[in-house]
Amino acid sequence: MGNKMTVYADNAATTKISPAALKAMLPYLDEAYANPSSIHSAGKAAADAVYRARVELAENLGCLPNELYFTPGGSEANNQAILTAADIGAAENKKHIITSKIEHPSVLRVLKRLGTQGYEITLLDVGENGIVSPADVERAIRPDTCLVTIMAANNEIGTIQPAAEIGEICRKFSVLFHTDAVSAAGYIDIKPGALCADLLSLSAHKFHGPKGIGLLYAKKGVMPSQLILGGSQERGRRAGTLNVPAIVGMAAAFSEACVNMAKDNQKIARLRDKIIEGLLSIPGAKLHGDRTRRLAGNINVGFGGISGESLLLALDSFGIMVSTGSACEAGAAEPSHVLLALGLSEKEAKSAIRITLGRYNTELEANYIVECTAKAVGRLRSIANLEF
Amino acid sequence: MGNKMTVYADNAATTKISPAALKAMLPYLDEAYANPSSIHSAGKAAADAVYRARVELAENLGCLPNELYFTPGGSEANNQAILTAADIGAAENKKHIITSKIEHPSVLRVLKRLGTQGYEITLLDVGENGIVSPADVERAIRPDTCLVTIMAANNEIGTIQPAAEIGEICRKFSVLFHTDAVSAAGYIDIKPGALCADLLSLSAHKFHGPKGIGLLYAKKGVMPSQLILGGSQERGRRAGTLNVPAIVGMAAAFSEACVNMAKDNQKIARLRDKIIEGLLSIPGAKLHGDRTRRLAGNINVGFGGISGESLLLALDSFGIMVSTGSACEAGAAEPSHVLLALGLSEKEAKSAIRITLGRYNTELEANYIVECTAKAVGRLRSIANLEF
Repeated sequence: MGNKMTVYADNAATTKISPAALKAMLPYLDEAYANPSSIHSAGKAAADAVYRARVELAENLGCLPNELYFTPGGSEANNQAILTAADIGAAENKKHIITSKIEHPSVLRVLKRLGTQGYEITLLDVGENGIVSPADVERAIRPDTCLVTIMAANNEIGTIQPAAEIGEICRKFSVLFHTDAVSAAGYIDIKPGALCADLLSLSAHKFHGPKGIGLLYAKKGVMPSQLILGGSQERGRRAGTLNVPAIVGMAAAFSEACVNMAKDNQKIARLRDKIIEGLLSIPGAKLHGDRTRRLAGNINVGFGGISGESLLLALDSFGIMVSTGSACEAGAAEPSHVLLALGLSEKEAKSAIRITLGRYNTELEANYIVECTAKAVGRLRSIANLEF
Repeated sequence: MGNKMTVYADNAATTKISPAALKAMLPYLDEAYANPSSIHSAGKAAADAVYRARVELAENLGCLPNELYFTPGGSEANNQAILTAADIGAAENKKHIITSKIEHPSVLRVLKRLGTQGYEITLLDVGENGIVSPADVERAIRPDTCLVTIMAANNEIGTIQPAAEIGEICRKFSVLFHTDAVSAAGYIDIKPGALCADLLSLSAHKFHGPKGIGLLYAKKGVMPSQLILGGSQERGRRAGTLNVPAIVGMAAAFSEACVNMAKDNQKIARLRDKIIEGLLSIPGAKLHGDRTRRLAGNINVGFGGISGESLLLALDSFGIMVSTGSACEAGAAEPSHVLLALGLSEKEAKSAIRITLGRYNTELEANYIVECTAKAVGRLRSIANLEF
């Protein structure tokens, strides 16, 4: 391999900002810097920009502008969504919450804390394909269930959850439904109306928007609990000066993602399938998560006998950036809770690498990923005297 | 007045980003976009940028890099600081907290909530000059006091509090001391060591850094409570993908502010004094807060018989941007809690405007502010048939 390329294939960790989103942000980073809470004309101009962004986001989400609350990211939105439902539940003496074993830590850790505060948490298993069964959700619902929280798509294995079916079941039983749409937003339809979601979270930097900004959707009538107290921003539901440039950038990035979703997905899925096909021809390769019901860009794969971390570093030396799982948990000694939930052994779970493609990946890069992975797997096995 | 200028004099609400800070951010907004939690080389490069920013901030604060925790802003830092001290106190059965009546809502509202959770809150009065008395703090300390939280400088009237003296008293009594340095950071020395502060909060957009980023300092040995749960970012004390460009921008802006502090302050204070002198020659004018112990850029003034909001709008028509008080509370019907604490009547409090200068204001602008304010006050009084 004479030419070393640089291939970013870690789009589930974060994405490159789109030129359109960056362009939309720049004026608000620089000249149009006023605080949107200020009532002078510069403040009003900033508030108008925030309002336009809110309306644009609402249009793309098929909801009302005032059902949206800006947060600094997906974790904050997930934390606030769950706290909201927990508070509503507590007021009605309903303290049972249903979730799955493959949720993001910003969901599971909040639920774990609630578990120490008098709430009872049901952690649903998933099939070996990494998908939650709506029937399991329905069976788990009790008279004291206040919340079902199931992600729209998984961040590690990309499996698309039957959120709409689960949402319908929740509606039937009058239980609040929250979906963590951080990994799904911009890649599949996550309109809260279509998913029957009462609460929904997303994060801009996952769909070519800026870091440091996310969104909590709370259906009209569901009043978000205050997680951060202070000024009266966001109708008093979240304090802190609004991050105008990031809000504007998120709206632009989300519009772009929604407009191009079908086209982008088609291209990305083709590259993904090509890579999956190539990688599965390597002996001892195993794809994790459902083969087809997964995000267009996600490939989570293990190669028998090889640690994911070694393979990640080997690919890095080829200029290819991938991850072993969630970036939020990178460097953690424990195997992925998601892969264990699929029934993988600890060793299998630690063999996983996650290759996640995005809008800017090319066919040349896809070929290079397959070629280098085959080479790296071969080398690592020969070092370890492994035969496959 | 033939030429209409545009004068931004609301620097306490937010500031224009400095060209150096914006320049430092741009690569991380665009090409160097990786998630610093990713372990591939692009992730490492982002993590290195965060580390360099952390070290630079620590040097300017005279503290250790790992005493700093990035937050999305000042409100989050204040919320987390108080929660931290409250949790530490609860573990020792100490549930008494001392604060003042002129703190920011992101302090007072958290304390109000703690007041409903078994904590007892002592709200200290301030003198009519808007300064907390260290002797009052000392008298209020009890065996069960777990926290004293007093801001370094007030956001509305700019009064500089005797934080170092208060910090020393707290140390003597082994009580945690938190100072909200959001309005002070970049304008006066707020090194936690100098203030004997165990916890300290700041926000980048107040000192010509970007919006959406702040900092919680927690002294070694003081472990911040987790306000946002999720991934293991910030040594597990605050979840959420790090906002790399904003962190880099904050470090650059803070360095610049620290290096130029003396020079900038001298210039800004000269403009401030010129404006104060000019405004106080208008009949019925009254300056709120101590004349000298105030931030270089702060002027909070009322004109008898005139509402601050009317004056703000009149000045806005001249192209001058000021506020009536905290931007966080703009539009609120209630008079400022800070001004009421100085002993002003509701009517007097509602007459206040806050003019806050910064690094980019000029002498020409200062003259224009005085000229237009005199004109606006005259017009508003003639409309109302008021004589002064």
